[in-house]
Amino acid sequence: MQQILDDIAAQMALETDRGKVADYIPQLAHIDPNQFGIAVATPDGQMYTAGDASTLFSIQSISKIFTLTIGLGKLGDGLWTHVGREPSGDPFNSIVMLEHETGRPRNPFINAGAIAVVDAIMMGHEPREVLGEILQFVHFITDDESIRFDHKVAASEMEHKDRNASLAHFMKSFGRLKHDVDKVLGTYFHQCSIAMNCQQLASAGLYLVSNGVDKHSGVRVINEHRARRINSLMMLCGHYDGSGEFAYRVGLPGKSGVGGGILTIAPGKGSIAVWSPGLDHIGNSKLGLKALELFVEKTGWSVFSD
Amino acid sequence: MQQILDDIAAQMALETDRGKVADYIPQLAHIDPNQFGIAVATPDGQMYTAGDASTLFSIQSISKIFTLTIGLGKLGDGLWTHVGREPSGDPFNSIVMLEHETGRPRNPFINAGAIAVVDAIMMGHEPREVLGEILQFVHFITDDESIRFDHKVAASEMEHKDRNASLAHFMKSFGRLKHDVDKVLGTYFHQCSIAMNCQQLASAGLYLVSNGVDKHSGVRVINEHRARRINSLMMLCGHYDGSGEFAYRVGLPGKSGVGGGILTIAPGKGSIAVWSPGLDHIGNSKLGLKALELFVEKTGWSVFSD
Amino acid sequence: MQQILDDIAAQMALETDRGKVADYIPQLAHIDPNQFGIAVATPDGQMYTAGDASTLFSIQSISKIFTLTIGLGKLGDGLWTHVGREPSGDPFNSIVMLEHETGRPRNPFINAGAIAVVDAIMMGHEPREVLGEILQFVHFITDDESIRFDHKVAASEMEHKDRNASLAHFMKSFGRLKHDVDKVLGTYFHQCSIAMNCQQLASAGLYLVSNGVDKHSGVRVINEHRARRINSLMMLCGHYDGSGEFAYRVGLPGKSGVGGGILTIAPGKGSIAVWSPGLDHIGNSKLGLKALELFVEKTGWSVFSD
Amino acid sequence: MQQILDDIAAQMALETDRGKVADYIPQLAHIDPNQFGIAVATPDGQMYTAGDASTLFSIQSISKIFTLTIGLGKLGDGLWTHVGREPSGDPFNSIVMLEHETGRPRNPFINAGAIAVVDAIMMGHEPREVLGEILQFVHFITDDESIRFDHKVAASEMEHKDRNASLAHFMKSFGRLKHDVDKVLGTYFHQCSIAMNCQQLASAGLYLVSNGVDKHSGVRVINEHRARRINSLMMLCGHYDGSGEFAYRVGLPGKSGVGGGILTIAPGKGSIAVWSPGLDHIGNSKLGLKALELFVEKTGWSVFSD
Repeated sequence: MQQILDDIAAQMALETDRGKVADYIPQLAHIDPNQFGIAVATPDGQMYTAGDASTLFSIQSISKIFTLTIGLGKLGDGLWTHVGREPSGDPFNSIVMLEHETGRPRNPFINAGAIAVVDAIMMGHEPREVLGEILQFVHFITDDESIRFDHKVAASEMEHKDRNASLAHFMKSFGRLKHDVDKVLGTYFHQCSIAMNCQQLASAGLYLVSNGVDKHSGVRVINEHRARRINSLMMLCGHYDGSGEFAYRVGLPGKSGVGGGILTIAPGKGSIAVWSPGLDHIGNSKLGLKALELFVEKTGWSVFSD
Repeated sequence: MQQILDDIAAQMALETDRGKVADYIPQLAHIDPNQFGIAVATPDGQMYTAGDASTLFSIQSISKIFTLTIGLGKLGDGLWTHVGREPSGDPFNSIVMLEHETGRPRNPFINAGAIAVVDAIMMGHEPREVLGEILQFVHFITDDESIRFDHKVAASEMEHKDRNASLAHFMKSFGRLKHDVDKVLGTYFHQCSIAMNCQQLASAGLYLVSNGVDKHSGVRVINEHRARRINSLMMLCGHYDGSGEFAYRVGLPGKSGVGGGILTIAPGKGSIAVWSPGLDHIGNSKLGLKALELFVEKTGWSVFSD
Repeated sequence: MQQILDDIAAQMALETDRGKVADYIPQLAHIDPNQFGIAVATPDGQMYTAGDASTLFSIQSISKIFTLTIGLGKLGDGLWTHVGREPSGDPFNSIVMLEHETGRPRNPFINAGAIAVVDAIMMGHEPREVLGEILQFVHFITDDESIRFDHKVAASEMEHKDRNASLAHFMKSFGRLKHDVDKVLGTYFHQCSIAMNCQQLASAGLYLVSNGVDKHSGVRVINEHRARRINSLMMLCGHYDGSGEFAYRVGLPGKSGVGGGILTIAPGKGSIAVWSPGLDHIGNSKLGLKALELFVEKTGWSVFSD
Repeated sequence: MQQILDDIAAQMALETDRGKVADYIPQLAHIDPNQFGIAVATPDGQMYTAGDASTLFSIQSISKIFTLTIGLGKLGDGLWTHVGREPSGDPFNSIVMLEHETGRPRNPFINAGAIAVVDAIMMGHEPREVLGEILQFVHFITDDESIRFDHKVAASEMEHKDRNASLAHFMKSFGRLKHDVDKVLGTYFHQCSIAMNCQQLASAGLYLVSNGVDKHSGVRVINEHRARRINSLMMLCGHYDGSGEFAYRVGLPGKSGVGGGILTIAPGKGSIAVWSPGLDHIGNSKLGLKALELFVEKTGWSVFSD
């Protein structure tokens, strides 16, 4: 395994077409595109890493896995009154389907859906309290209390909030958000600003590898049904309008973030985190996708093969 | 396994809400909704069945798996210039996305996409020749030469062709079909009219269970990459706008047909065919979906669990 | 003329199906639906009225004519970089076309377009200043300084701003608004809250009757080209997705508001204001439309007849 | 008037940017773009012409005015169960709105709507009979029996029918067409193939100038209401997604055809026909629009001015 990761990191270092770093907020635009990290955590407690696997980056939309898990824990299947579970066939920030479906987002991984999940788990509490809960959950599944929000990133997102504010007000106009739009957005932007490295992220994914239990620590995070279903949502909707492409090339449940990270789950085998800040035209990490494709070729970990 | 199937068949026999039989052509409208069949084929050559597993039914859209396989065999990745591989977020017969994407269908499993695949594999040949090839392929993967087209079903589809004719002419107006529209539609409707039973269908799926090889017969049908990728397409797009629901509840690649059949692949484990003619509001077999959900609960064969 | 108006008012008093008063803010929901007013102002200075023609009501979207006039005065044809001039085929608050056309509203009479016009005429000024200018313009064209904003209506709109906030943030995310969204919305809601009666409104329309000049006072409000073009925009887009219906039944340029008013222009002949608070399903005054249809039958003032 | 037309023709002769001749069928692609004709017919029987006013061209979509008139004559307001009367905000051949509105076209001037009108007036008759009736109507309103279909143009349209065939089959799939699709299309393409010159076309429009009566001949073609309403439909929907632009720049009801002709009605004043084969990007005659804009500047015939 270590050899595989080293090979991949070496090959990625040679890539010249590294995509385009997200530039809609200055905090992301400044990241050096010449970075690449990969980490694999296995249920038996092993951790393999290569490249910049201990460099912190903004996990952005990958955080939607964690709030979805919290939401299912708190509301159970009641969560599905707030958000659907079908692919959208539209970009991450599209508003068209919201209008045709009276403000109910298609799934929890497009922006509108993730905002609806945040609203659902707020339950009358203040952003500070909800954010405390989210961070506590991340500390719990990683067993690492050093993980923090990046308040500068969150503040900058808030300054450039317009597209997400539009989605949130749109849903609110249909009565689909219960809390103040700015509080929901503040919570959402902080959730997305969490800074983690590949190692921490791979570790965070372990509960989805083993039916809801982190086998290494023995801790049950969520029940078996829900773990399986979070994986299915990652498979169908984890990469916006590139979900089909990811399933086709990688064949594993995954969730990407605009910071360049991707968390990928191979049920029963391991949790893989990759990071490289340059994005393709859909908004997924260009080298991340390439590295995962190579990884699956070498390991045969696709869920679609024997 | 036999016990599991018997239990499922017994439970399905008690169901009163059996959905609504497709009624857009008389040949399908007359089917008795009180039927249910299930068959499981495993790579070691075992076949388990329960209920009406040897009753023939119209496989309809399930045939799209076979023409996709033929298309990939003939054109390789060139097939993707004819059709995409992303979920559509629209009903099976929607034309909206075609207009926004200059006539290129989103994936090979919506009607427009399947029609484009037929056009791609015709390569100047007459419908009779292409249909011969399709049937030969089905005979080959099932090792059963008794399988036939149902010409009455095909003729009736042709009589009620308008929605599909609209899709075909639309694509042709963008230069995306090379052959005469009526010939393409005639081929497509015959392909969909193939009559099979659950046992035959389960057997036909075996090459997708084992990386492109039918392990029992030892025959390689398609290379490993493509087998994996056909599975990924079935997972993401196999049930129209109910693909997310199927992935969520069943967690296996599958393809449904309006005749009430569903073919489902558990990589490395087996090929499952179910059939019950009553459909849910999206057009997938109501009891078929329920039976598969139970089957996965009992066997743990979901690709999303350990 | 007086006889015609009296007849119409008498007939309207007998109507039992009076539509549904707008109820999205309490200030509009409380209005008594059993009211009807009509006023006709002619270029020679005559004013004819019937019914509740001196009762104040919220002019709402009718105000968009005035801000469009101000916008053309200030920016000339430069205004059309901010907003288009085609019918939209969508409801007044639709966001779908905005997404397909990169945030540029189709015309100045749908909400998004009117908000874009407000932003365009702000030119760095504070809402208070812009609102002063709008009110001054209304005073000028009506020669009536008693006309005021209804701050309670404006405040209530602000409280229920979500749909419009969504449109505004959406446009801002495409860089199409230059000012702070809340300031633009505050200005927009105040503009809509202007309270006028039929008599004042008919008087306000006179400059559009006579090629930009209020013939009675001799004052030129706007040049001939622009007057003609404002009329064409009212004809094509003045009633949202009911514009075709209004042209078909009335055949005059007009602009409706959700408060139940409609201002209608018969070039060369007169300016007609009607008001009745009950709306049809599209959001236009039900009796207002009926009364105007009768009025045109009796006067022959349609622009589409000899 | 003669002077005005001569000036316009002279000015048009100097234009170098003449647009692009329609090239989707060879019969239209061969037309020399350096032609321009204009003719004005007035209710007192005068006819003024300039340029190539007696050259025949394919009237194409202008024919939709005539079938709409026939349809209203035969079915009265019952015609509106087949087709709506709102602008579409979409290109002439869009299918998107059809899907959202269950196959009912938005208005009789987009292709789908015109096809629905043809189907409505067929009433069980054969294409030959219906075409006879259409031609008879055109002979009647022009008092010119030399006008003919161009069968080569019609045949070529049939050969390239795909986009219109898609629209027709789509409507038929919703039960909105009663006749065989190919017969409806054959009738529609012949109707569009009528060859006329500017003089004949201006003469044909006279009944819409004077409330349904051709004042010169004294013949009533249609009742006053309907004449007015056909004009309103031409104003709102006569130029596809360029209808707002035409109303803004010309301010008269008009209908354009892809052959480069435009018929324009100035109620009470005259009927203006222009022709120049080069089209703008929306599909309307580039010089035709320019010439009409000049014409209205010089005559003041806009319905939006005093």
